[in-house]
Amino acid sequence: MQNVPSNWFMEFVTPDTIQQFAVKDILYYGKSQYQKVEMIETVAFGKCLILDGKIQSCEGDEFIYHEALVQPAMTLHPNPETVFIAGGGEGATLREVLSHNTVKKVVMVDIDSEVIDLCKKYLPNHHQGSFDDPRVELLHMDAKKYLEETDLKFDVVIIDLPEPIEGGPCYLLYTQKFYEMLKTKMADTSVFALQSGATIIGITEVYLAINNTLKTAFPVSIPYEATVPAFGGPWGFTLNSTKLDPRELSQEEIDRRIAARVTNTLRFYDGHTHQGLFYIPKYLRDMLAKETTIITEDNPVFVPGI
Amino acid sequence: MQNVPSNWFMEFVTPDTIQQFAVKDILYYGKSQYQKVEMIETVAFGKCLILDGKIQSCEGDEFIYHEALVQPAMTLHPNPETVFIAGGGEGATLREVLSHNTVKKVVMVDIDSEVIDLCKKYLPNHHQGSFDDPRVELLHMDAKKYLEETDLKFDVVIIDLPEPIEGGPCYLLYTQKFYEMLKTKMADTSVFALQSGATIIGITEVYLAINNTLKTAFPVSIPYEATVPAFGGPWGFTLNSTKLDPRELSQEEIDRRIAARVTNTLRFYDGHTHQGLFYIPKYLRDMLAKETTIITEDNPVFVPGI
Amino acid sequence: MQNVPSNWFMEFVTPDTIQQFAVKDILYYGKSQYQKVEMIETVAFGKCLILDGKIQSCEGDEFIYHEALVQPAMTLHPNPETVFIAGGGEGATLREVLSHNTVKKVVMVDIDSEVIDLCKKYLPNHHQGSFDDPRVELLHMDAKKYLEETDLKFDVVIIDLPEPIEGGPCYLLYTQKFYEMLKTKMADTSVFALQSGATIIGITEVYLAINNTLKTAFPVSIPYEATVPAFGGPWGFTLNSTKLDPRELSQEEIDRRIAARVTNTLRFYDGHTHQGLFYIPKYLRDMLAKETTIITEDNPVFVPGI
Amino acid sequence: MQNVPSNWFMEFVTPDTIQQFAVKDILYYGKSQYQKVEMIETVAFGKCLILDGKIQSCEGDEFIYHEALVQPAMTLHPNPETVFIAGGGEGATLREVLSHNTVKKVVMVDIDSEVIDLCKKYLPNHHQGSFDDPRVELLHMDAKKYLEETDLKFDVVIIDLPEPIEGGPCYLLYTQKFYEMLKTKMADTSVFALQSGATIIGITEVYLAINNTLKTAFPVSIPYEATVPAFGGPWGFTLNSTKLDPRELSQEEIDRRIAARVTNTLRFYDGHTHQGLFYIPKYLRDMLAKETTIITEDNPVFVPGI
Repeated sequence: MQNVPSNWFMEFVTPDTIQQFAVKDILYYGKSQYQKVEMIETVAFGKCLILDGKIQSCEGDEFIYHEALVQPAMTLHPNPETVFIAGGGEGATLREVLSHNTVKKVVMVDIDSEVIDLCKKYLPNHHQGSFDDPRVELLHMDAKKYLEETDLKFDVVIIDLPEPIEGGPCYLLYTQKFYEMLKTKMADTSVFALQSGATIIGITEVYLAINNTLKTAFPVSIPYEATVPAFGGPWGFTLNSTKLDPRELSQEEIDRRIAARVTNTLRFYDGHTHQGLFYIPKYLRDMLAKETTIITEDNPVFVPGI
Repeated sequence: MQNVPSNWFMEFVTPDTIQQFAVKDILYYGKSQYQKVEMIETVAFGKCLILDGKIQSCEGDEFIYHEALVQPAMTLHPNPETVFIAGGGEGATLREVLSHNTVKKVVMVDIDSEVIDLCKKYLPNHHQGSFDDPRVELLHMDAKKYLEETDLKFDVVIIDLPEPIEGGPCYLLYTQKFYEMLKTKMADTSVFALQSGATIIGITEVYLAINNTLKTAFPVSIPYEATVPAFGGPWGFTLNSTKLDPRELSQEEIDRRIAARVTNTLRFYDGHTHQGLFYIPKYLRDMLAKETTIITEDNPVFVPGI
Repeated sequence: MQNVPSNWFMEFVTPDTIQQFAVKDILYYGKSQYQKVEMIETVAFGKCLILDGKIQSCEGDEFIYHEALVQPAMTLHPNPETVFIAGGGEGATLREVLSHNTVKKVVMVDIDSEVIDLCKKYLPNHHQGSFDDPRVELLHMDAKKYLEETDLKFDVVIIDLPEPIEGGPCYLLYTQKFYEMLKTKMADTSVFALQSGATIIGITEVYLAINNTLKTAFPVSIPYEATVPAFGGPWGFTLNSTKLDPRELSQEEIDRRIAARVTNTLRFYDGHTHQGLFYIPKYLRDMLAKETTIITEDNPVFVPGI
Repeated sequence: MQNVPSNWFMEFVTPDTIQQFAVKDILYYGKSQYQKVEMIETVAFGKCLILDGKIQSCEGDEFIYHEALVQPAMTLHPNPETVFIAGGGEGATLREVLSHNTVKKVVMVDIDSEVIDLCKKYLPNHHQGSFDDPRVELLHMDAKKYLEETDLKFDVVIIDLPEPIEGGPCYLLYTQKFYEMLKTKMADTSVFALQSGATIIGITEVYLAINNTLKTAFPVSIPYEATVPAFGGPWGFTLNSTKLDPRELSQEEIDRRIAARVTNTLRFYDGHTHQGLFYIPKYLRDMLAKETTIITEDNPVFVPGI
């Protein structure tokens, strides 16, 4: 057994499921004002940000998560100039947004400035200098509060937050009321994308409730999936708008827009990927069709803890 | 910590990645002539067959794996009457094949009769009585040898074997020579589907080599993916034939064929699922395009062990 | 890695220490009125009783624990006829007590009758039929309440309970008040032994507090240690009495008493073992000497949980 | 589960037993010419040296191991002036030897200079500057070869090597031939101590064989035990000589010698500890009495691997 790695990151994906990744190095551990923060380097996925014991993203497969979260929304918009990001401390969501040369202004609100400072230091492959881009306004405050108070409207909104956890602050950003308010910060052609929870069979409760709630607020609300290996299973996303539907764009039009606008090399997303993205398996469609939960402040949903 | 489950199944998905599932019960453990066999009941995924320490399939999500493996091939064929299955001891691949009412004869060859007897006893939700269907001829011998010696040709061939492991017997069923031989047991309209390995980023070596080898043997060779949570990540499949291409069937045609032929209720697969199935992400396409390995008996590939 | 066992019992020995034992079989799992109960069969230690996720005892090394707990006290007493046992549901403490042919009556009080029924069924090597001995009176009630209400006095008292856990009922049996009450149920020559907690360096808080509390109640209170591998480290015991001191018995006298009285074959204990048992290492003596905590109902101690 | 530590050291103590310690930091990882070397900081036991995946010693409890290994031998000798150490790269065995002010010369032979350089850097609490003591001659070569070639005789010999592993070089230092040779480097009053393997029940094979082999070479060969929590169970040591017997020294004489000679503060060892040290439990004595294996170069023993 001397070939078995000595050090392992251990995460309870659910109360009944553990994933472990061999760890080469622990780059940082500490507590910010809001959460336990760790930076580790895994053998399988490179450097990873861990918040409160949960993997947020890893160098090795973060491109799947971040391109899946950002690129469909950005590409769907005919000319995204103003973008709002909630969360996304690693700077990779920002990187994907800034890769569109149409963008003139990004407001990114992440409550935890310590996490961002640590990501700046330890995860250069994530942010790739995005925080220094002059188009970026970075604020450390509650994202909900910012939106309530701003007069701005945004072409694209990306919500890149942890799943709702009992006792955590994020859950208020998953309610019907929040989505209704958010709509007032968007134009008719605006697009809003978010990660909407694990679609791992057996623990889809949060995913289903979020998507059912989004449907009540947005005329177009299209769930899609991507599998991010470090998350331990398939992951859900949702693209929302008043009238733009991602399924109406052809493969050629997507590739044309990418060629015209995107200054990065994309690894996950292109016109071909886009075509397949919005076909989700029958069992998820069936579960979504049956879902009745609408998330409100009085009726929140939380991921299972122990 | 008294709420943490006491008993856990632990699997090295790779030398650097472990997945653990809480175990309610150990139904059986022993060794057959060929392998270590365990039947466990997990909290997350119900009853699972474990061979040589690797999860083969679990009640909770096996429908994803088995429908993804079998249904595209069966549905693509205009009138599948004769089917060959290699492996598939749980009986769930057989179940999916038999669900097509066009089927007149299935030859299933699984070398390990003890595994099949255990699956019959412990996994009724997998096989659902399929082994008793009069259309089935079940043989316990080497599948390669059977094919080499038979004069039969098959409309559909399904290979449902473990990945190639150093020292194991399966690796000879992943070579160019085997695929060339297999082609002689197929008609022009025949279809051949197999699971072609993990597409988890970082451990795609086997998947890429298998798919590159298949391309040398079959004019149509289309890789696709499905995420089976108990496998710890996304999984690859490949649909091969001389001239039938799954991408040419419309959603409506798929749904029409299912309605006309399939006697089971499908949970993963339908016309909508089929449309998305053959769009794989850009990074996998890029890796497949660059792959040069051709698997031969003298140049085999193996999944990494320790 | 196919030689790595698939199924593992996992126990948080402390919040920072896990031990795992390969599991061959899960014989039983359920909940009694009081606790989560599991019977597992480990490769290393055979069949084990697990209560609330903590190993209570295993066939493979329980003889160390049970002989260490019972035999010094029983042997020290010149003629033990009446014995009280609190806890000890496996029946192995009872087995050791009954092995002395001087014993006329044993009152055993274990609150959880379901655990005892399960031990009777699954752990025959532990109890070896002891529950059927006509000298035994087995009661299912709170041991403290029984003692408070009984008029009996006992020659030997054995307390074989889990460590004090926040929210559990046992902690009241580790207080100064309880020990004072217990003394009224003992004669001048009576002896009282108990397991007094882990002596694993770094988590000795409970052990030190219990032993310091015992000293306030008993003129003779002698801590000793034995290492029970399935417990994950060395374990503390304490022998208490008004005037009998175990260090005053010679090796020969111990062996003579065993030969005259004990009907079982002892594996851990004899005169030689006894001589060494009461020499504990300097660091434990130093910590015990500095300890000031006295456990009361208002100032309880608990083992660390998460 | 957010309170469960994220990072864990995992060690297969046996093929069927795992211990895990929460890891705060990974200070170093790499490979020397001879072995995989890691320095980690655990929550429970502080900084630890890991060689080939096995814990060698940790700050938190190394004093138990090193005092148990060195102090009985050093104290038993009436006037130890010359000492030979094989292995012991952490420098803690050296520290204990040098604590005796009678010592004039120590020859320490550890084949792996890289490990020693790493211990010098990362484990100051282990060596406490011992490598700089002018009485020390440190050599990097095969200890067996050194002894075969030297003309020196030593008052005390300490062998502080890993257990014999198949394919490793150490196993030749556990043979009857080696012990016979070693005896020629010792005077009549010389004393030789070594760690002689795990005494964890079920995996005592190596321990029993080593001790049986030592008995054939040394007229006085006394096994003893100490429990080092980070080793996962009780550990065996053996004190050997031609005529000095540790059991003949009184507690007072030990304490007198310590007071006269030892310049360190001892935490585990003193006269009281010494008195108890040589009483081992009956089951170990019984197993030792029955053991017949004599280790030779043609009949080696190895700890079980996978």
